[in-house]
Amino acid sequence: MKVQHYSEVEAEPVKEAAKNTMVRWLIAERDNAPNFYMRLFEVGPGGATPHHEHAWEHEVFVVEGEGAIVGDGFSRKLEPGVFAFVPGGEVHHLENTGATPLKFICLIPKAQ
Amino acid sequence: MKVQHYSEVEAEPVKEAAKNTMVRWLIAERDNAPNFYMRLFEVGPGGATPHHEHAWEHEVFVVEGEGAIVGDGFSRKLEPGVFAFVPGGEVHHLENTGATPLKFICLIPKAQ
Repeated sequence: MKVQHYSEVEAEPVKEAAKNTMVRWLIAERDNAPNFYMRLFEVGPGGATPHHEHAWEHEVFVVEGEGAIVGDGFSRKLEPGVFAFVPGGEVHHLENTGATPLKFICLIPKAQ
Repeated sequence: MKVQHYSEVEAEPVKEAAKNTMVRWLIAERDNAPNFYMRLFEVGPGGATPHHEHAWEHEVFVVEGEGAIVGDGFSRKLEPGVFAFVPGGEVHHLENTGATPLKFICLIPKAQ
């Protein structure tokens, strides 16, 4: 069993085109997670994840901060306790609309 | 895309032997989630999830409250921001050691 605080996991800049966004891979391939992986994203004020689509789904849960999740023609407010299911193939991004970091968990399947 | 606050999802008593524990199925079969499901557990003061093991893994992230995750011969403190990977086959339970609800996300694979 692995039990840690997320702050013990190194934060890396997001590799894709993203603005002011870091990611910590909390539960990943190195842990032999067999089916899905847990990441914690931190989007700074004014920052956003890339507006993109892909074949795999996201399961998101907001931990801290304020923001929006933006799809094709709509935007929904994000605050702590909001969760989102983004099916594969739907265009999306998440952005920080507040003055403090937007932190959210985002899980993806192992096979992508 | 589904975007909601967890409080919009009905809380149900946990079906297995558990003490003072409710679960909200945030992302589940009804959402056509293809690979894994997200639940939010609320364990009241003095409560605990069952001490058990099963073939599938858990991926946990603590949202609110204080508690412990207990395995075979060890116990680790839980507080907001702590995450846990419990591989399949490892005995475990989570318990509330504080005076307020312990709330955590727990994800499981679709095939169990």
